[in-house]
Amino acid sequence: MSQKPSVPQGTRDFSPVEMARRRYIFSTLEAVFKQYGFKQLETPSLENLSTLTGKYGDEGDKLLFKVLNSGDYLQKAPDELVQAKDSKELIKHIADRGLRYDLTVPFARYVVMHQHEISFPFKRYQIQPVWRADRPQKGRYREFYQCDADIVGSDSLLYEAELSCIYDEAFHRLGIPVSIRINNRKVLESIAIRCGFGETFRDFTVIIDKLDKIGEEKVAEELTALGGDAQAAVALLASKTFNREALDGLAKELNNEVGEKGIAELEELLSYLETQNLHNEIILDTTLARGLNYYTGTIYEVVAKSVKMGSIGGGGRYDDLTGIFGLKGVSGVGISFGADRIYDVLLEMNAFPELGANFTQLIFCPMDEASRLYSFKLASQCREAGIQTEVYPEPAKLKKQLGYADNNGIPVAVIVGENERESGALSVKFLQDGQQESLDILALINRLK
Amino acid sequence: MSQKPSVPQGTRDFSPVEMARRRYIFSTLEAVFKQYGFKQLETPSLENLSTLTGKYGDEGDKLLFKVLNSGDYLQKAPDELVQAKDSKELIKHIADRGLRYDLTVPFARYVVMHQHEISFPFKRYQIQPVWRADRPQKGRYREFYQCDADIVGSDSLLYEAELSCIYDEAFHRLGIPVSIRINNRKVLESIAIRCGFGETFRDFTVIIDKLDKIGEEKVAEELTALGGDAQAAVALLASKTFNREALDGLAKELNNEVGEKGIAELEELLSYLETQNLHNEIILDTTLARGLNYYTGTIYEVVAKSVKMGSIGGGGRYDDLTGIFGLKGVSGVGISFGADRIYDVLLEMNAFPELGANFTQLIFCPMDEASRLYSFKLASQCREAGIQTEVYPEPAKLKKQLGYADNNGIPVAVIVGENERESGALSVKFLQDGQQESLDILALINRLK
Repeated sequence: MSQKPSVPQGTRDFSPVEMARRRYIFSTLEAVFKQYGFKQLETPSLENLSTLTGKYGDEGDKLLFKVLNSGDYLQKAPDELVQAKDSKELIKHIADRGLRYDLTVPFARYVVMHQHEISFPFKRYQIQPVWRADRPQKGRYREFYQCDADIVGSDSLLYEAELSCIYDEAFHRLGIPVSIRINNRKVLESIAIRCGFGETFRDFTVIIDKLDKIGEEKVAEELTALGGDAQAAVALLASKTFNREALDGLAKELNNEVGEKGIAELEELLSYLETQNLHNEIILDTTLARGLNYYTGTIYEVVAKSVKMGSIGGGGRYDDLTGIFGLKGVSGVGISFGADRIYDVLLEMNAFPELGANFTQLIFCPMDEASRLYSFKLASQCREAGIQTEVYPEPAKLKKQLGYADNNGIPVAVIVGENERESGALSVKFLQDGQQESLDILALINRLK
Repeated sequence: MSQKPSVPQGTRDFSPVEMARRRYIFSTLEAVFKQYGFKQLETPSLENLSTLTGKYGDEGDKLLFKVLNSGDYLQKAPDELVQAKDSKELIKHIADRGLRYDLTVPFARYVVMHQHEISFPFKRYQIQPVWRADRPQKGRYREFYQCDADIVGSDSLLYEAELSCIYDEAFHRLGIPVSIRINNRKVLESIAIRCGFGETFRDFTVIIDKLDKIGEEKVAEELTALGGDAQAAVALLASKTFNREALDGLAKELNNEVGEKGIAELEELLSYLETQNLHNEIILDTTLARGLNYYTGTIYEVVAKSVKMGSIGGGGRYDDLTGIFGLKGVSGVGISFGADRIYDVLLEMNAFPELGANFTQLIFCPMDEASRLYSFKLASQCREAGIQTEVYPEPAKLKKQLGYADNNGIPVAVIVGENERESGALSVKFLQDGQQESLDILALINRLK
């Protein structure tokens, strides 16, 4: 079979150069996570579909990738559904598993399954791919990495502050100026109640979540259609620097119980942040809703200031996620970094540092078979001394061998022919400046260590 | 919804301790790969099903996990297949994608897609999970990591030798004594031809591949049933130390063309290996077949000497894998490490080194709210100095806070109350020996750096 191969839409291969850059992002985030005491966890790519369904809002289930059962998967499927070609209803009969959609639901499942072994508060980080059957576009893939840091087992706002600092420090190290946007679900609810959207809160949040995409006028139209005071709502939905003044102003407007709770949470978060010298701006953005079901308090979103990319980070407080899996009363808060978008931002900003994708320091270029065997022996000696070493593998003119060295950024070539083999005096060529020296193996090793 | 959650059969979560151990294995392998000049690559978990099918033998397609198409996946499915509930034939109509089964076929696809950008020979390593719908058992999972090193674009046996050395060095660093078993597909074919199984070679290799599982007698029975000289075959199928004597003995028996080619390849490989001081034994095992379609020369298998686990590594030479994707004449050779089995071997041998899963060096234990804010500020100063620091997040008695420190292996606790806050003299408790000192923040930082 001969066919032009490709990768599925929304997925990509990563070359050595791309891998070096991705690793740079992951290791930067990981170093910050560890600075704050987070420990690494990994969960399977395959989850039971029952773990995933119903957790991501109305659209979420459609975006899950389902894995077909093995063997005769249709055997036990109800005949009437099969005859009717009812794709939607048949799923549960032919697919028991799916690919994880995020890292938070798997984490909640892990916490419930290991609740007796875990010491709370439990701080974990997780860096793994997730899968969503979204429509691919700029910055949106079907397979992409999330880098999450979550704490469960405490409702303390000190953790909200830690996570804000983690965003600040991580993006500072990566060299990406960001706007760290904060809201609170209780504040949003309070605005909704205040403006007559208390009964239609869900729809209210769906509409204002579209503010960036459809604009204020259209949002006001849809809110009016929903049946509340659109003008009053729009007046309260704004972005301001996160400070005492902004909070006091908001507090005056939200004089219901849920509003007072939300304001109190934001005030406590602000107290912690005021002790810090942050690199980036923190914005109080009362329009911030984000499409997920489970946020109950603080909500985060991070956007790059110099590149249009959508959000490159987001998260929030969830008081009862583990409750879905049977463990009530465990509060959690977490943030996510969109590593693939961050990659695209750094690329667009031309802000990646110089990174090596090739690690070889030295290549032996043998001129005949006996020299190739001899080089193979010397190469091991070099590696034992910690030098990353290759041997050109087959008969070829020196020009071709040096061409390989050049293509692979190898800085030193050791030419080995009969003379070198017999005398032990190797012809060492430094490819960056073209210098050539005669060195024995020990001198060569010393020079390169 | 409240349900007792679980992970799918054959998959596992990895706790922080398990992650530290897995990272230890991956980083050890990666260090060896880099020593030999291999560069990292990653490919998507999702592949087009057409990329995967037909590459892994008769049983392979059954073991692939298929991903259901999104939306109304049954709409275009032929009615007659649906009515007949023909699970097998329907797959291609309802599932365009699958999860990768190994890393070699994706690599071949990558090489063909990027042939004009790649400099040959191309040496890449890849450490990623793969998925197989196998029956789970000891050491066999449905989601597991492979750690592969392959070279494409050269048929030189120097690379076979390099890969043997990589197996030897990697398992030496991990502390696992192994048996590195080598065979050659041409030698196997030669034995088959010599004993009357030339026409039934495929079935011949399937039978002898079962030698470890069903034993010599049953293998002889099945070979007889196949219609050749079972006794002659069994006499030639043996394991010996890989040396000149073993090869000379074999050469005498295999006097056909393909046998001579195979012996010549093994002799060249031996020449390279004779220049090395290897830590482990290399065995010439003419029974080694391995179930895959695409090996054309050298075949490897690695087993642990002290733990019964099945193979923990395997690989071989494939002359025409990229040919399947349209690029002929590119030879490759590669090896794989079964990281999850290696993990289980190290566990059974109790051979993991002491590894930290918790990285926190210091925790602030505040005695009141003002002290918590004060600690939050000091913690940032510690982190700026490179110290991994936590702050106990909520009001709690000191005993509880120190209990958290103890559970998480945090060696230093800094108790902060009104006095400490006002004087700047922090009460620093070293939890390993119980010593307590009074230090200001700068002295504390100096002590811990």
